[in-house]
Amino acid sequence: MIIVKVGGSVFSDKRGEPENFKGEVVRSIARELASFYPGEDFIVVHGGGSFGHPEAKRYGIREGLPEDPATADFRRMGFTLTHEAMLRANARFIDAFVRKGLPAFSVSTSSVFITENGEVAYGDLEVLKRLLELKFIPVLFGDVSIDLSKGIDILSGDQIITYLARMLEPDKVIFLMDVDGIYDGRPGEGKLIQNLPREGIPALLERLNCTAAGTDVTGGICNKLREAEKIAEHSEVWFVNGKVRGRLSGAIRGDGFGTRIV
Amino acid sequence: MIIVKVGGSVFSDKRGEPENFKGEVVRSIARELASFYPGEDFIVVHGGGSFGHPEAKRYGIREGLPEDPATADFRRMGFTLTHEAMLRANARFIDAFVRKGLPAFSVSTSSVFITENGEVAYGDLEVLKRLLELKFIPVLFGDVSIDLSKGIDILSGDQIITYLARMLEPDKVIFLMDVDGIYDGRPGEGKLIQNLPREGIPALLERLNCTAAGTDVTGGICNKLREAEKIAEHSEVWFVNGKVRGRLSGAIRGDGFGTRIV
Repeated sequence: MIIVKVGGSVFSDKRGEPENFKGEVVRSIARELASFYPGEDFIVVHGGGSFGHPEAKRYGIREGLPEDPATADFRRMGFTLTHEAMLRANARFIDAFVRKGLPAFSVSTSSVFITENGEVAYGDLEVLKRLLELKFIPVLFGDVSIDLSKGIDILSGDQIITYLARMLEPDKVIFLMDVDGIYDGRPGEGKLIQNLPREGIPALLERLNCTAAGTDVTGGICNKLREAEKIAEHSEVWFVNGKVRGRLSGAIRGDGFGTRIV
Repeated sequence: MIIVKVGGSVFSDKRGEPENFKGEVVRSIARELASFYPGEDFIVVHGGGSFGHPEAKRYGIREGLPEDPATADFRRMGFTLTHEAMLRANARFIDAFVRKGLPAFSVSTSSVFITENGEVAYGDLEVLKRLLELKFIPVLFGDVSIDLSKGIDILSGDQIITYLARMLEPDKVIFLMDVDGIYDGRPGEGKLIQNLPREGIPALLERLNCTAAGTDVTGGICNKLREAEKIAEHSEVWFVNGKVRGRLSGAIRGDGFGTRIV
């Protein structure tokens, strides 16, 4: 089984119009997956892009549910509106996948997972496992979450994948990004790292200045690398460009262009 | 806590255009709930109406996943498309509720419940319970389901409520219908039953010819009565007209017009 993460920046421009969606990119991803299905099982997890991020920020979801009733009311509304925005992104994915003949099935992240400190504290994977057995392709997404300490929070697609990798032990986890992989420095400046041993990640995190929080609500590349370090305990990890046709297929086959963590 | 079921025929005309939605009816329901919130906690479950039913029928979802690969592929597509149609109905509900200031939150039925023989065999209520604690109004819906014996099936809103009533012991369950309540005979012909003792239900089922399967995919009034009999073990049950303003409020207060099962 292979888990594919479609980063928000692959299918959407966060700085563009609200809820913009690169349909041709997602259809191309679906086409590549279709050429391996049903021989290979997949779980797809997508990010928020221009759908979830603006709402999550506007309502300050990450700050949790406060005591003050007026602020709490405001946050509750933001919580539900952020989820609805993510469902709209998800519906676009399902539509693109179905058009390519893939039985993608929407699983609502917030219905299944409970978080604590931004990580999954509890997750019920019964439905997910059975969907896989029945040859569906479950499609999850970064979403709002009920949180044990803050009341409410955001659960990023990357965190979902860390949890799924630990529980389901996939053969491979593939992160689709809008760059060619992990760079030793800023993308476009540093050199692309094609083979990254898991033990090399802590030193890389330091070189990339990952001690401070990133600008992305979900932590960006630093967070990705930290999660990749955990995931690589259980499975091979790939970072490839999701906007360049064929890169996903290369990672599925195992001979692709991008960053491979072993 | 009160569970409110909004029947498909209340918010949609099953014989009308695909995905027709009576927004003014749902906004009126939201307005009535808002006058009791946050003093009272609610769970809302809605049916399929012109959203889920046509898809479920076209793809024969109730017949399960067969051995034949081509039919299985067809059913898998129908399964995902039926769920997407229900998510569109659900989004209309959430929108109407949020506009009335209610923090309604979408919970995907198929992400949470697994069925066997049309009943809930497994359900994870962790998220639901915490949503209630945090003063959200969870909104679930009749949906497709992973099924232990048939692979896939339909889980009706009424069945969800039976399960929730058993697990959560609500103070009251209110079924909103497009008629005034339960009739001793066909609606409009028989007499409205205002007080129905639970022990009277088996005799009524016989008088209503409920031994044969109904025309509704989810069983219609016979199924409702059978479920009501089970629910009444745990909670007071009301059947009221969801299209007449004030009837829902009457049932919430306990002095309303409709059928009350005690």
